[in-house]
Amino acid sequence: MAAGNGSTKQKSNKPAKTAISPTRSDNYPEWYQQVVRAADLAESSPVRGCMVIKPWGYGLWENIQGVLDRMFKETGHQNAYFPLFIPLSYLEKEAQHVEGFAKECAVVTHHRLEAGPDGKLIPVGKLEEPLIVRPTSETIIGEMFSQWVQSYRDLPLLINQWANVVRWELRTRLFLRTAEFLWQEGHTAHATEAEAREETMRMLDVYADFAENYMAMPVIKGEKTECERFPGAVQTYSIEAMMQDRKALQSGTSHFLGQNFAKASRIQFLGESGQHEHAWTTSWGVSTRLIGGLVMTHSDDNGLVLPPKLAPSHVVILPILHKEETRAQVLEYCTKLADELKHSVQYDGRPVRVELDTRDLRGGDKIWSWIKKGIPLRVEVGPRDMEADSVFVGRRDREHKDRFTLKRAEFVNTLPDLLAEIQTGLHDRATALVRENSACINTRDELYDYFTPANREQPEIHGGFALCHWNGDGAIEEQVKNDLSVTVRGIPLPGQWLDDLVREPGTCPFSGEPSPQRVVFAKSY
Amino acid sequence: MAAGNGSTKQKSNKPAKTAISPTRSDNYPEWYQQVVRAADLAESSPVRGCMVIKPWGYGLWENIQGVLDRMFKETGHQNAYFPLFIPLSYLEKEAQHVEGFAKECAVVTHHRLEAGPDGKLIPVGKLEEPLIVRPTSETIIGEMFSQWVQSYRDLPLLINQWANVVRWELRTRLFLRTAEFLWQEGHTAHATEAEAREETMRMLDVYADFAENYMAMPVIKGEKTECERFPGAVQTYSIEAMMQDRKALQSGTSHFLGQNFAKASRIQFLGESGQHEHAWTTSWGVSTRLIGGLVMTHSDDNGLVLPPKLAPSHVVILPILHKEETRAQVLEYCTKLADELKHSVQYDGRPVRVELDTRDLRGGDKIWSWIKKGIPLRVEVGPRDMEADSVFVGRRDREHKDRFTLKRAEFVNTLPDLLAEIQTGLHDRATALVRENSACINTRDELYDYFTPANREQPEIHGGFALCHWNGDGAIEEQVKNDLSVTVRGIPLPGQWLDDLVREPGTCPFSGEPSPQRVVFAKSY
Repeated sequence: MAAGNGSTKQKSNKPAKTAISPTRSDNYPEWYQQVVRAADLAESSPVRGCMVIKPWGYGLWENIQGVLDRMFKETGHQNAYFPLFIPLSYLEKEAQHVEGFAKECAVVTHHRLEAGPDGKLIPVGKLEEPLIVRPTSETIIGEMFSQWVQSYRDLPLLINQWANVVRWELRTRLFLRTAEFLWQEGHTAHATEAEAREETMRMLDVYADFAENYMAMPVIKGEKTECERFPGAVQTYSIEAMMQDRKALQSGTSHFLGQNFAKASRIQFLGESGQHEHAWTTSWGVSTRLIGGLVMTHSDDNGLVLPPKLAPSHVVILPILHKEETRAQVLEYCTKLADELKHSVQYDGRPVRVELDTRDLRGGDKIWSWIKKGIPLRVEVGPRDMEADSVFVGRRDREHKDRFTLKRAEFVNTLPDLLAEIQTGLHDRATALVRENSACINTRDELYDYFTPANREQPEIHGGFALCHWNGDGAIEEQVKNDLSVTVRGIPLPGQWLDDLVREPGTCPFSGEPSPQRVVFAKSY
Repeated sequence: MAAGNGSTKQKSNKPAKTAISPTRSDNYPEWYQQVVRAADLAESSPVRGCMVIKPWGYGLWENIQGVLDRMFKETGHQNAYFPLFIPLSYLEKEAQHVEGFAKECAVVTHHRLEAGPDGKLIPVGKLEEPLIVRPTSETIIGEMFSQWVQSYRDLPLLINQWANVVRWELRTRLFLRTAEFLWQEGHTAHATEAEAREETMRMLDVYADFAENYMAMPVIKGEKTECERFPGAVQTYSIEAMMQDRKALQSGTSHFLGQNFAKASRIQFLGESGQHEHAWTTSWGVSTRLIGGLVMTHSDDNGLVLPPKLAPSHVVILPILHKEETRAQVLEYCTKLADELKHSVQYDGRPVRVELDTRDLRGGDKIWSWIKKGIPLRVEVGPRDMEADSVFVGRRDREHKDRFTLKRAEFVNTLPDLLAEIQTGLHDRATALVRENSACINTRDELYDYFTPANREQPEIHGGFALCHWNGDGAIEEQVKNDLSVTVRGIPLPGQWLDDLVREPGTCPFSGEPSPQRVVFAKSY
């Protein structure tokens, strides 16, 4: 069988060739770029730091949006849309906030172009006040909230926005870190601190639920330390996932903003007691970065692997058409199969998504293009399959040669179970990786050894989640960061699988001081 | 009964009061702003020219997106996402294009903020090349297409993008003309001129289908004259609707771009014959402007009127709760009714959308808030209705006092028919308006009289669609525009209701020269 860009397994004892080169163990960052490229998810654009999300990648984002949007609405939120531009003076209203974003923002200064002396167009029409392309919308939404909220009856305000945002990044990587990215940002205002805290945790739970049950990506919910907090927040919580190189990926954040932004934007209301009070606000967001996390959690050396619940398509049908005399019949058989699947089989509450690939390409190239795209199931149908009324099925979560024959009717009937099995299998595999690579670390030396690649055979693997006591001192955190590029990813919240490992009090190995619980140290994206 | 911001009809012969003030006949533009405000669709933001789309308005946009997105996918298009920023040199690639957009664009010139000598933040980090916030994406998408297209096998490329765009407008009006707006832009590339022309017309038809069958807004499909063409296009087609003040609203455009942009961006392919050829491209778009059109087509002096197919909610249930002893029972009865409707009644292929309004407000205020929001059906339920197992129904397309009692079961069973009847009724009413106000005009004097408000009793009504012969001379067009603020809205395409009126050849009344068919002259937004 022919392979795609790379090639396929050999029958000798030579090391197996792979469709993606380099492999994960050769060069993990480059492997990631190649998987994204081979799956046709996205590519860099000529605009520095901005990516183009191609149809297969955007289809993934549409599915992510669809599920999250439903979850947000089920928890009482409504969508709205706010301006792309934020006046500089608004950004300045919250001191920490502007400090956090001033270093990396796109500034609009003019509103017209005119031919200059040499005939080239130059910006003219200087704005009185520069406008910042939103890096996040707390300040502009806060301003609107201050107009909308008069009385406690107007609260809570539960708003979400799907939007593009810009943070000027010089070192970018597709999906993981780009100057422009797509995201949702929830912004809520409440009458009491307790309600705002409850909302902050509710949305963190929604994100964790989505990551685990749709992305098949296990996450640890934790609170961020002071130095990793969102600029202007009182407390920041996140979900952290482990990539296959054992680095952490912050995949979603939920912020309890206290009254900081309410005071900056004067979101005030007349309380039941007749007093004017400041509202309590929250914000929370996930972005196209999730796609990077999904790629790095599941993919292998043959390319992308997609969890069925989010895959743009579930099944590709590949008619084998090289014999002219059976061509029309095989094509008709496949078309009917595709129609039947689309119209009578459901998975996760919606019709299954089916592709019929009739492109005029060599069979091997065709199959490999779908392997690299990560489609959960491939179904080959040739003249002999048709005669036997059977199909030849390949699962993306198994070796590409490990295929099996099913009677057509059995395939149609068991398709939802097959997809559910793949979804669960991916989650199980990813969960095993996190658990095997989360270790209780008890001394400073142990920690430094854990994250020192020179000590290892596999330079592309970066320790794991080091569960370590810590007294909360930022200077220690800073030291570890400088020495190892390792940070505290989060202080785990109770009620998770790692409770037994982290919740017992102990001694901080850096200071010898008491520590209430272990925290997660790791390298990160 | 109490009224909302305005008030309700009087039983005497005094002129009826209305919920919206001024009325359409008093001051149409101000009436529009008040309808948008009273329905809570959108409002101006502190960012010049940018609006905030509030949840009820955004819900409308989500429904518009949902239907159009399905239509685009059914016609073979895929969604993708391209950068927000366009390098100035890209915009310059097509001479007419840059000329069309240079006068009104947001220019990013810096990528950082730093404290200046007086401590205030100022833009620093000047970009080597200014970036334009996209006013439309032909040039950046053209660049990507040039990389994606190598051979005729890569064609057609059928791409759509949902995005925000910015055109710096100084005189803005909510939805109709704003500096930032939301839209979709389709961009396609084809191997032949015929295919590109076919695509241009296919998408114009999709827009017309959507306008008529979802927005209940009749439109005329036509070709734009040279001076109204999209900058860089070979031909521009549009759908034009008539608002209640008889002005035209351009509601969607589809452009045949010929090889202009393919040459500017070097979109070339190896043809079947082995020759390198330039592709033929199209682009087409509709925007949040559609919401302005919807408001002005159907609304009345009591506020917004929504076509059921796009309404964020179809029905509001209003329990009458003033008697303490029956309060709990009425509420339970209404909750059950809402649940039954949501779970067992479908309209337009989806579950009906139901609101249960239990706010602690006076009954009249509550009812009027929903009238002004344009919800198609209001259902009041008080203790006596409950006892009789019946509901008291008000239709938004009828006078607000014209309500009727239905047995609960009958209401549940006939709800889809009621909604369908309202949808059709709105379309019929709007269609009648266009036909009554489209007139064949045969002389120059007649035309000038038709559009001169001094000749009329109703200064807020601006003529209508004047179907007039014209020899195609731009100077005549310019003269009429200067004299009357009237332009050629389009040269009607064949196969429409006005065929009998416009398709016969005749004589241009301005020049005395022959004219192949009549065109539509009108004032416009």
